[in-house]
Amino acid sequence: MSGGVGLVQTQQAVLFDEDRPLRLESGARLAPVEVAYETYGRLDEDGANAVFVCHALTGDAHAAGHHGDPSRPGWWDNLIGPGRPLDTDRFFVVCANLLGGCKGTTGPGSIDPATGRPYGLRFPQLSVGDFVTVHRALVRHLGIRRLLAAIGGSLGGMQVLQWAIDHPGEMHGAIVIAASARLSAQNIAFSAVAREAILRDPDFNGGDYYDGPRPDRGLALARMIAHITYLSEASMRAKFGRRIQDADEPRYGFDVDFEVESYLHHQGRSFVERFDANSYLYLTRAMDYFDPFGDPVQTARRLAKVDTRFLVLSFDTDWRFSTEHSREIVRTLTAARVPVTFREISAPHGHDSFLLPIPEYHRTVAGYLDRLAAETTA
Amino acid sequence: MSGGVGLVQTQQAVLFDEDRPLRLESGARLAPVEVAYETYGRLDEDGANAVFVCHALTGDAHAAGHHGDPSRPGWWDNLIGPGRPLDTDRFFVVCANLLGGCKGTTGPGSIDPATGRPYGLRFPQLSVGDFVTVHRALVRHLGIRRLLAAIGGSLGGMQVLQWAIDHPGEMHGAIVIAASARLSAQNIAFSAVAREAILRDPDFNGGDYYDGPRPDRGLALARMIAHITYLSEASMRAKFGRRIQDADEPRYGFDVDFEVESYLHHQGRSFVERFDANSYLYLTRAMDYFDPFGDPVQTARRLAKVDTRFLVLSFDTDWRFSTEHSREIVRTLTAARVPVTFREISAPHGHDSFLLPIPEYHRTVAGYLDRLAAETTA
Repeated sequence: MSGGVGLVQTQQAVLFDEDRPLRLESGARLAPVEVAYETYGRLDEDGANAVFVCHALTGDAHAAGHHGDPSRPGWWDNLIGPGRPLDTDRFFVVCANLLGGCKGTTGPGSIDPATGRPYGLRFPQLSVGDFVTVHRALVRHLGIRRLLAAIGGSLGGMQVLQWAIDHPGEMHGAIVIAASARLSAQNIAFSAVAREAILRDPDFNGGDYYDGPRPDRGLALARMIAHITYLSEASMRAKFGRRIQDADEPRYGFDVDFEVESYLHHQGRSFVERFDANSYLYLTRAMDYFDPFGDPVQTARRLAKVDTRFLVLSFDTDWRFSTEHSREIVRTLTAARVPVTFREISAPHGHDSFLLPIPEYHRTVAGYLDRLAAETTA
Repeated sequence: MSGGVGLVQTQQAVLFDEDRPLRLESGARLAPVEVAYETYGRLDEDGANAVFVCHALTGDAHAAGHHGDPSRPGWWDNLIGPGRPLDTDRFFVVCANLLGGCKGTTGPGSIDPATGRPYGLRFPQLSVGDFVTVHRALVRHLGIRRLLAAIGGSLGGMQVLQWAIDHPGEMHGAIVIAASARLSAQNIAFSAVAREAILRDPDFNGGDYYDGPRPDRGLALARMIAHITYLSEASMRAKFGRRIQDADEPRYGFDVDFEVESYLHHQGRSFVERFDANSYLYLTRAMDYFDPFGDPVQTARRLAKVDTRFLVLSFDTDWRFSTEHSREIVRTLTAARVPVTFREISAPHGHDSFLLPIPEYHRTVAGYLDRLAAETTA
């Protein structure tokens, strides 16, 4: 892939302070709130060509380009750049690290001004609506009048959904990929076991581990558990089968022997280098409670005001948020006469498909953004 | 359900001793080997009405009847008893705790005569073939001439499969339920993560925890992870949905809040009361390496001698060992002209279905055993 957005920098802005604290849905107030974000492309003079990218559970603001080493691009670099579906020659693309995250936006690892020490579990509980509140403050800060679109996969898609239904009129299009309007019991079960792995790590120390050893064992286990759900069974079979690691013969012991074990260990090890266990707890818990269509009467009332048009995408081998989750979103929106385009993309990679350059997927996103742009400039 | 086999006792026998140690497939020798088993019904004079029950990963010898409290029957009590599919008025039913287990058969928690202390991880690695070797010794010990059938679900079915192909002529029928001839990469991944939870528990202490605190946190986590794979997504949804535990309103915190969390916690807690972490490691690892059809040439040669007839059963909502795993067994046996009856049973309960009194399932097993009995007495 040639081109790309090239060298970029993560920026930071204090969007809420003691005088204007962030009010959370729980009623709690939080200040200061600093937000890390990146932008690619240029904002038009009328401030109407912006596309907001919402990241998934373990993503960050660095969605595209690179920070000095072109071989280490942002997590959605294949989607964002000149001539790519989120075409930075045409669109002003923004991505921000989530509230509660650990990559530059205020989260449980930030200093609590009341104590001078990291919040840890004294950080307030968060909802997907709270993530959206912070994104909206950044949109205002950047002088964006109205979003052409918001787009996100998985937890990113959940933010897009919440934003579009809570704040009708703030975006022309909403692209919700491999997401869910409510986690199933099985989804919550995986999420709960991953959190237990962290909470039971003796180094977790009630969330106050920033001065000492970190709960790396628990966090790595959480990642390993979750990672199994990100891949389809078929892609795991194709990638690893039952191959033995670094040897002709099995060693018949409890050390890593099968390649799939080695892969999961690597996932666990590299994750603890880049992620904070407390952030993992807060963000997964917000997903568990997410249920924007929970009250049918309120949903109907709110959706009646929505003039955003939706593109909902799922992947046929995704068993974390299967197509059924997307269909549920589509059914609810359609029942309320909100315009929705739905497509199930065939791809073997499971939930992780939303991160990959799958031609039909990229064509669909590109075509949809074209249409949105044509509609808004008509 | 009326009747049942009533009060039973677990018996024990030393089947291998210093003079005649157990030779394992790895080449290691083990002695003494004591085996815990139960029997239900009576052995005919010609010793040909015996049905051997092979238990799954976390089962034990106590398959039917009760040990004093009729409200706490054995794990397969719905299948075994007078007038039940394994009809104890007609059949002599035997069930033994697995080698490497922790319910009366020699395992890593047993005393190593060389040191006078529990084996821990000095216990030798085991294979499914080793489990079968010990079962066969028990069969001889009990004076059984030839098994009418061996039957088992999950890891139990894997033992039945191994036994039937390794020792043609020792059983008339083999009933292999919700099993697999080789774990998939995804199966191994779940198994690996569950083991990691144990191995990373600081109380694991390299397997030498019998004198001190036990790795209960890790073992409970392992059970919670595995348990998710035992239930279908639909049965989890039907059982728990997104219901909140003991409260009208969510508490929005990291404590148990959803019913599915409470259920998994209960599973974890009760499991550590009855199971040994080292046994969990040994038995799951034996499953990972199980691959009786791995070498096609050898498989064809061995299966040419098999005169056992097979009943292979799967459950349509089982995603741990899906119907595809059973079809693979059926394909291999059929290609070698081994007589196989295959049925996929429709049941909503996922992998756990093999433990439940599902009418079509029980009728199928009962009918098959009838046919086997008719054939052998004809």
